[in-house]
Amino acid sequence: MPGNSFGQLFRITTWGESHGPALGVVVDGCPAGLKLSSSDIQRELDRRRPGQSEIVSPRNERDEVHILSGVFEKKTLGTPIALVIYNKDAQSKDYRNLKDIFRPGHADFTWESKYGHRDYRGGGRASARETIARVAAGAIARKILQEYAGIEIVGFTRQVGDIAADVGSFSLMSASALRRRVEANAVRCPDAKAAKKMEDFILKVKEEGDSIGGVVEVIAKGMPIGLGEPVFNKLPADLAYALMSLPAVKGFEIGDGFAAVKSKGSENNDVFEYANEKFSAKTNHAGGTLGGISSGLDLIVRIAIKPASSIKKEQETVTKQGEKTRISVEGRHDPCLCPRAVPIAEAMVALVLIDHWLRMKTSRL
Amino acid sequence: MPGNSFGQLFRITTWGESHGPALGVVVDGCPAGLKLSSSDIQRELDRRRPGQSEIVSPRNERDEVHILSGVFEKKTLGTPIALVIYNKDAQSKDYRNLKDIFRPGHADFTWESKYGHRDYRGGGRASARETIARVAAGAIARKILQEYAGIEIVGFTRQVGDIAADVGSFSLMSASALRRRVEANAVRCPDAKAAKKMEDFILKVKEEGDSIGGVVEVIAKGMPIGLGEPVFNKLPADLAYALMSLPAVKGFEIGDGFAAVKSKGSENNDVFEYANEKFSAKTNHAGGTLGGISSGLDLIVRIAIKPASSIKKEQETVTKQGEKTRISVEGRHDPCLCPRAVPIAEAMVALVLIDHWLRMKTSRL
Amino acid sequence: MPGNSFGQLFRITTWGESHGPALGVVVDGCPAGLKLSSSDIQRELDRRRPGQSEIVSPRNERDEVHILSGVFEKKTLGTPIALVIYNKDAQSKDYRNLKDIFRPGHADFTWESKYGHRDYRGGGRASARETIARVAAGAIARKILQEYAGIEIVGFTRQVGDIAADVGSFSLMSASALRRRVEANAVRCPDAKAAKKMEDFILKVKEEGDSIGGVVEVIAKGMPIGLGEPVFNKLPADLAYALMSLPAVKGFEIGDGFAAVKSKGSENNDVFEYANEKFSAKTNHAGGTLGGISSGLDLIVRIAIKPASSIKKEQETVTKQGEKTRISVEGRHDPCLCPRAVPIAEAMVALVLIDHWLRMKTSRL
Amino acid sequence: MPGNSFGQLFRITTWGESHGPALGVVVDGCPAGLKLSSSDIQRELDRRRPGQSEIVSPRNERDEVHILSGVFEKKTLGTPIALVIYNKDAQSKDYRNLKDIFRPGHADFTWESKYGHRDYRGGGRASARETIARVAAGAIARKILQEYAGIEIVGFTRQVGDIAADVGSFSLMSASALRRRVEANAVRCPDAKAAKKMEDFILKVKEEGDSIGGVVEVIAKGMPIGLGEPVFNKLPADLAYALMSLPAVKGFEIGDGFAAVKSKGSENNDVFEYANEKFSAKTNHAGGTLGGISSGLDLIVRIAIKPASSIKKEQETVTKQGEKTRISVEGRHDPCLCPRAVPIAEAMVALVLIDHWLRMKTSRL
Repeated sequence: MPGNSFGQLFRITTWGESHGPALGVVVDGCPAGLKLSSSDIQRELDRRRPGQSEIVSPRNERDEVHILSGVFEKKTLGTPIALVIYNKDAQSKDYRNLKDIFRPGHADFTWESKYGHRDYRGGGRASARETIARVAAGAIARKILQEYAGIEIVGFTRQVGDIAADVGSFSLMSASALRRRVEANAVRCPDAKAAKKMEDFILKVKEEGDSIGGVVEVIAKGMPIGLGEPVFNKLPADLAYALMSLPAVKGFEIGDGFAAVKSKGSENNDVFEYANEKFSAKTNHAGGTLGGISSGLDLIVRIAIKPASSIKKEQETVTKQGEKTRISVEGRHDPCLCPRAVPIAEAMVALVLIDHWLRMKTSRL
Repeated sequence: MPGNSFGQLFRITTWGESHGPALGVVVDGCPAGLKLSSSDIQRELDRRRPGQSEIVSPRNERDEVHILSGVFEKKTLGTPIALVIYNKDAQSKDYRNLKDIFRPGHADFTWESKYGHRDYRGGGRASARETIARVAAGAIARKILQEYAGIEIVGFTRQVGDIAADVGSFSLMSASALRRRVEANAVRCPDAKAAKKMEDFILKVKEEGDSIGGVVEVIAKGMPIGLGEPVFNKLPADLAYALMSLPAVKGFEIGDGFAAVKSKGSENNDVFEYANEKFSAKTNHAGGTLGGISSGLDLIVRIAIKPASSIKKEQETVTKQGEKTRISVEGRHDPCLCPRAVPIAEAMVALVLIDHWLRMKTSRL
Repeated sequence: MPGNSFGQLFRITTWGESHGPALGVVVDGCPAGLKLSSSDIQRELDRRRPGQSEIVSPRNERDEVHILSGVFEKKTLGTPIALVIYNKDAQSKDYRNLKDIFRPGHADFTWESKYGHRDYRGGGRASARETIARVAAGAIARKILQEYAGIEIVGFTRQVGDIAADVGSFSLMSASALRRRVEANAVRCPDAKAAKKMEDFILKVKEEGDSIGGVVEVIAKGMPIGLGEPVFNKLPADLAYALMSLPAVKGFEIGDGFAAVKSKGSENNDVFEYANEKFSAKTNHAGGTLGGISSGLDLIVRIAIKPASSIKKEQETVTKQGEKTRISVEGRHDPCLCPRAVPIAEAMVALVLIDHWLRMKTSRL
Repeated sequence: MPGNSFGQLFRITTWGESHGPALGVVVDGCPAGLKLSSSDIQRELDRRRPGQSEIVSPRNERDEVHILSGVFEKKTLGTPIALVIYNKDAQSKDYRNLKDIFRPGHADFTWESKYGHRDYRGGGRASARETIARVAAGAIARKILQEYAGIEIVGFTRQVGDIAADVGSFSLMSASALRRRVEANAVRCPDAKAAKKMEDFILKVKEEGDSIGGVVEVIAKGMPIGLGEPVFNKLPADLAYALMSLPAVKGFEIGDGFAAVKSKGSENNDVFEYANEKFSAKTNHAGGTLGGISSGLDLIVRIAIKPASSIKKEQETVTKQGEKTRISVEGRHDPCLCPRAVPIAEAMVALVLIDHWLRMKTSRL
């Protein structure tokens, strides 16, 4: 019930403040018998961590994961898997100047109002550093999905500011081919040309001490038919919930999404066809679900990410006492959140799918 | 855990097939002491029901609500409130021709695949008729929010196809003024000029045997500060979950939503100000939340609604056996879902807010 | 979260006041494909209803169940099954004299204090009439357990006041043989001799205008190995929770229960043996679980039931205003709750087992 | 849903294997603003740890708690509180001889059958060492109950084998007076005379290489009226669930419990009285609840604890392969679990009460 758990059958509970001793996650409900080592998890954390390129935050945190329970002789026990990432040098920086200031776009004001007490160091629990725990848990979900359900999840930066990728042929690529193109550049955009433009633009914005928004898309290939519960746990609802719970995400869509608004039923309906003993459809306007349940076509979702709130450029704001002041958020921030948001969004999609995949085992007698 | 309950502290469980004997909802967690009569609920059901105008389905269902428990001497007991709406003439129509056909855009195929057995009459539980239960439960949530929390929720049709309302001054209106303008026309669009165009366009589409999509916006005024839990139960996440669980909804956004993608941090951050012993902001790009917690500014969310899948226009499809066939979905369908989606979307927003309002009582010692 | 739902994967939500228009239950999570008709449920309700013999309440309620959703063409759909039992003549009796009196042993006082408003007619929601909903839902659980898991559940009256049944040979009987002996007398005690004594004693107590307590035992035969989760959802914990939530139940034990207190480890440990490719044990002090997980041996649980609080014998009490008064609870009450508690307790055991049986499908890869 | 979380609004998730790197718990839902330091928690862990006396396990584990999140500047943040206790020398002992043997009375057999893979070292997650996490979380619950709700919880050993404490006057003592008597001896029995006999008996049993059962009672004083939800979350049901989830617990009762079976309604009903503007009762057969809701009288519950399964005395058993063998469970085990079960049972009662205390804030408008 409190807000730090996610999932029903594959349930994660995350904890930790940005500048506290550690962050972590407990994964409860992971079935017994999965081969698992910390390197399976570290790989995904490395994709998320800062300092990977010029266009993301230059901090150099290693974010090393430790498995404290749930794995014995390299296989999961069916017991909770506790993962912890210790914060290094968390105490070194002095955040006392932020104690009494409400940074624009940040949770400082609402948090202070709600709880009457907050950890002002780097946003505390409201920091995006919290997503470490999600990526770590998501890595386990992903492994099961790949090895036991044949589902591959690939995310990428689809748009930065006005610059949109040309995604014409992505849907025809295999997951691994698409992933190779995604990981080939720092923006994580599979359209190499657009990626170059995005990168240049992000560097320019960074120089201005400003930030820019973008769109991240996640595709799941190899989807089974039947994931998703009718009514409230429709797959698109659970995915929206998962992705809108990420910091800085302001919008979600599945398939044609907002573009479907302008189309007619005769255009938007995906026409069924049957071949090789398999039902399919020529088009995928729906994005892989019908009535909230996966149809076997690729799952396609997108999120709108706002420009990062932490900018060097000076802004007006007020103190806790209501006095006007100006603030330049120093620190090593991301000028565009998209590149690092890709593995995070993938993790959230994985966490939704694993839950429905386990749940589906109980839908029929 | 199964997919037919919504909410944590104010928890609803809905049930019923489109053409079964009845539909209903159990509302568990409504505090004791609320004055409540069936007319409080009927009012909202009447806004949802078909047959209200030329541009919605012409069916004439009364959808009369009965309170079977939880209310005694006109006040809630703190026990579950069971509401039931009996289906009239449900058996009269013959749906046997749909037994073996997968209608494009509908859940027939995924449902059949998942469960191996389905009620093919009018979509069964996958029918949008299921939203009756949500509107009924939402009416109770709404009453508490209005009378005890001072929160007013107003929804409206913001766009139909290409026709967008001019919403410039809506944010300055009181909830009641805005609602009067919304309810003044059949499209439920507060911009009277745009409403006329929308209506004409919907009638044209209807004549073609086709359907058209649209955008519905919901605003909550009188928001307290502090609704929303950090991390997974962020207010935007719970709202996205609630609204994406509605049939035909393909996208969700809060505040500037997808438009924020193109803006810079220095433009998108809402600058705090302090006046009359109150913190506020000049702009509301965020749409009323910061870090997932309500800031006291108006809550503003939007959903993308696809064109209704049921159209008279003939479409290709396949039978359960995989044979090609053509289908014209007869019946009295909605050419545009927006007008009737307005009270439904409002109900879902109310259900999210009541839960967080109750929850907030436990956040501090 | 609110207190009217039970179960995780097979989740029931009950509603209804004793003298309101109806009582009911929504069963969410019943897998699709189960053959189900109202007679499957009615059979169990008939075992629970009053008026079956001299030693239970002489009221003559038919308690007829109606299935309002979830079943189509005689098979479950995988959607919520809504069951309703309308109250007959609920308004006929005048309970106004109880409006201001706190009956000893009843929930009148605590309910009034907690909610500030209560349905005083026959106890409202605190009435044992609420268990109708549990028995109805339990009948569905039971059917699945029998037909798909091979589990048979049999309960019986083991003790009334000082009179205990001789249960020596019950554990060796088949479920059906035991059930025949149980249903052969009004007390539902398989030891015919003790049953006669119990019946005579209950009639004597009834004549005195008093009531008497007892013990009900429930055995589940055909148990698979592996039901129960480690730590909090241990099978004994879930069973205790289920059975202690019944009105008038004051104690719970599994296997030797409180008698184990006096034994030594060397006596209490059940020694494993292996024969016919099956692990077993010579004794069953544990009552069918080890470490909270079913071992394949018979599950054996017992509950202590207090004497019914409603007695004709005059008792002292106070009014809502704090004035002393005397009360004789008129009405047609049960002098001993055990005979009717048997099907209710069986239902609760079934609801626990079905949940774990579904859950077990997700414990291994 | 998976079995390692407990509570709804004050929700704990425990993790860790007996011989893994660490054990821990995440406490989610602790309100902001509570003064909390590790010494508040350590105090309770010290009461639980082995090595305190001759009659408990002589192991010498320090079980030092570390707070990794949720507390800032000595006050809770409203965010998850992560507590960890590192296992010392966990690797040192060789448990390989237990890899293929099913110890009688232990979870080895059921766990192996359910998961196909288990941590055989000291029981892994099935070890009672897991209760460290419960005691740690319970210490926080307790602090809130004491400081904000005025509730004091005191547990004690009431019976060991045949030796029962004389508890005549305990109910009249203050919580602190009772606790002093409890902590005055190693058995934790407030009747000093009985305590001496119990101690002698336990030492004798220990010498025989055997173990003995007992009864632990927990009393909560200063109870508010109104804790507990009707129907499924009745206070006795939640308490039974909490306490029956502890290792080795085979029975639960509230108030007169199983003794109520032999009494009549006219004897068992607690007669209300009214004095000093307060409702009360002369007797407390019910044990502090009516209709599942706390009545303001002392809450009194008892659990039956079986003799520890680990005994030095040689027993017959079988190997994983089904071969007969004999086993003497070496190690430093508890000859009677009661003394150390006292703080554990208190912790579980605290966890139930805090949840209902938070929940009660939402029951009325």
